[in-house]
Amino acid sequence: MTKHPLIKALALSLTVAAGPAMADELMERANSNFEPIPKYPPVIDGNELTQAKVELGKMLFFEPRLSSSHLISCNTCHNVGLGGDDELPTSIGHGWQKGPRNSPTVFNAVFNAAQFWDGRAADLAEQAKGPVQAGVEMSSTPARVEETLKSMPEYIERFENAFPTSEEPVTFDNMATAIEAYEATLITPDAPFDRYLRGDEDALNDKQKEGLALFMDRGCTACHSGVNLGGQDYYPFGLVSRPGGEILPEGDKGRFAVTETASDEYVFRAAPLRNIELTAPYFHSGAVWSLEEAVAVMGTAQLGTELDDEEVQSIVAFLKSLTGEVPEVTYPQLPPSTAKTPKPVDMVP
Amino acid sequence: MTKHPLIKALALSLTVAAGPAMADELMERANSNFEPIPKYPPVIDGNELTQAKVELGKMLFFEPRLSSSHLISCNTCHNVGLGGDDELPTSIGHGWQKGPRNSPTVFNAVFNAAQFWDGRAADLAEQAKGPVQAGVEMSSTPARVEETLKSMPEYIERFENAFPTSEEPVTFDNMATAIEAYEATLITPDAPFDRYLRGDEDALNDKQKEGLALFMDRGCTACHSGVNLGGQDYYPFGLVSRPGGEILPEGDKGRFAVTETASDEYVFRAAPLRNIELTAPYFHSGAVWSLEEAVAVMGTAQLGTELDDEEVQSIVAFLKSLTGEVPEVTYPQLPPSTAKTPKPVDMVP
Repeated sequence: MTKHPLIKALALSLTVAAGPAMADELMERANSNFEPIPKYPPVIDGNELTQAKVELGKMLFFEPRLSSSHLISCNTCHNVGLGGDDELPTSIGHGWQKGPRNSPTVFNAVFNAAQFWDGRAADLAEQAKGPVQAGVEMSSTPARVEETLKSMPEYIERFENAFPTSEEPVTFDNMATAIEAYEATLITPDAPFDRYLRGDEDALNDKQKEGLALFMDRGCTACHSGVNLGGQDYYPFGLVSRPGGEILPEGDKGRFAVTETASDEYVFRAAPLRNIELTAPYFHSGAVWSLEEAVAVMGTAQLGTELDDEEVQSIVAFLKSLTGEVPEVTYPQLPPSTAKTPKPVDMVP
Repeated sequence: MTKHPLIKALALSLTVAAGPAMADELMERANSNFEPIPKYPPVIDGNELTQAKVELGKMLFFEPRLSSSHLISCNTCHNVGLGGDDELPTSIGHGWQKGPRNSPTVFNAVFNAAQFWDGRAADLAEQAKGPVQAGVEMSSTPARVEETLKSMPEYIERFENAFPTSEEPVTFDNMATAIEAYEATLITPDAPFDRYLRGDEDALNDKQKEGLALFMDRGCTACHSGVNLGGQDYYPFGLVSRPGGEILPEGDKGRFAVTETASDEYVFRAAPLRNIELTAPYFHSGAVWSLEEAVAVMGTAQLGTELDDEEVQSIVAFLKSLTGEVPEVTYPQLPPSTAKTPKPVDMVP
């Protein structure tokens, strides 16, 4: 993947909707840059998606008792009814503390190469362990989580069924593995763009096709390609021109905190763009509420291009074709606490 | 309904499981005190449960943007996966403030004569307006709610379909009416006790039948009868012997705040007991985590009776027969915010 995508615009955008031949060419180019969301959850190495494990993972995803307050679950910040995130600039966690970065969507997260804005978790299982322990998020500990889950007979049985070969099924690690299995089912296939990639010319309207052509011509694809149109690699935010501190706060140096390499200052994982119209506000700072503005900022900051209003509108129209079918989620019934269940922690630590 | 239920125990409890004749007598007595949860939602005067209205009400029930923080929805404190409440002593609301009383379950709330621990709302529609506006809960205003809902075209359309005769469909009042319609569907029929009331002798085991007999003999039914085993009328907490301040905080005088009548000091609506095993901790103070302890406290405080361990266990076994079938809830998909949607309020007011 090219890291410095200063590809100049071609004239294609003006002629794209001219006829079937051109439409086919556009479709071909799109298929060389992107892939449709598969209709079924992917296979995860070392984590078979059994029904018992996925169902347990769903319960854990909605389980507020994984937080020490008993108020916050994964779904609080990755709300499956709100595009898989919380629509807040940065999340609110334990004791009403604010997290440092915008909550990414859980939908299609399984297709990202790594998790978090700085890619510090290799996969969803590793990711799931972070917020549970973070003081500003769920503020719990592995020991407390295990004590909590072991206090409820239904969880013990469900962990045994989900992890039949584990000697000790109820563990913090298995909690994370089950959550990963559930999250792998949270994919949103059949967006108009997916139907287009599969050959349905009419799935995108002319404006969206124009936006798609622009998206590729201007070089957005250098960072935003593949199945998730992003989420695969790391790039400096402000490659050409660094945005102001309100969008790119100076205190958050991104991937530098993970690698401690100078060239990783202000480097972030390129945001996956699936369902992007559902997940405002934008960027790791959550500072930008309008998708139009976010596209324009990307133009100047990453591509050194001042996109005009019509170009921005076309790209936004294309981005809205990335909204897929959200899976139907039946709310899980969680077992009641028992006398052995640790009580909610009343105070901010 | 008798307000001073100092009915002395009969000897029935010792002989209840002796044979079919006695079982029939017990069933008959039970049917004279209680009613089964109906299999279908009840009819609500002036609020027809159309599909459009119920579906809209479900969206609003799960809608965190009804709170000024955009974090808290009805489901936060009335969690349909946790017995319809939050399993906290008192709820956590806007800015991590603590509410004054334990969050009651939304399940079967439609069968209560009035809402809140002090009955200050006549019905669920009136109730729904309270937490949305309360500074310690969702901390919003009717104007902000209407502005929020009107900012999203899908909500406008759904309100129009749900309230086809309203000249102004998107209103705070209609929000509450739709939520009431949805909540009326959150009923939990087919508990073992319901099957027993309908004639299935084997639906309760001997211990539960013993508990049922005791429950009636000792006079618990004076306050806890009808379809919800409570929720119908108001009684002083500490009728015979007032519990300590940890269970009955001095600052909370209950219904006195509603009626300003001296005799209503420390008067509360009798708690409905449906699904009670799922809704710890107990009492308006949420101070008691164990159902056994709650039953024992009721014995001394309300009946002047020191129930022995076996009696407590029997009554608890009976109470566990009140756990019904929770309705399947499909998580609603909420429309994305628009440029006109009021932004979340960042700070505690």
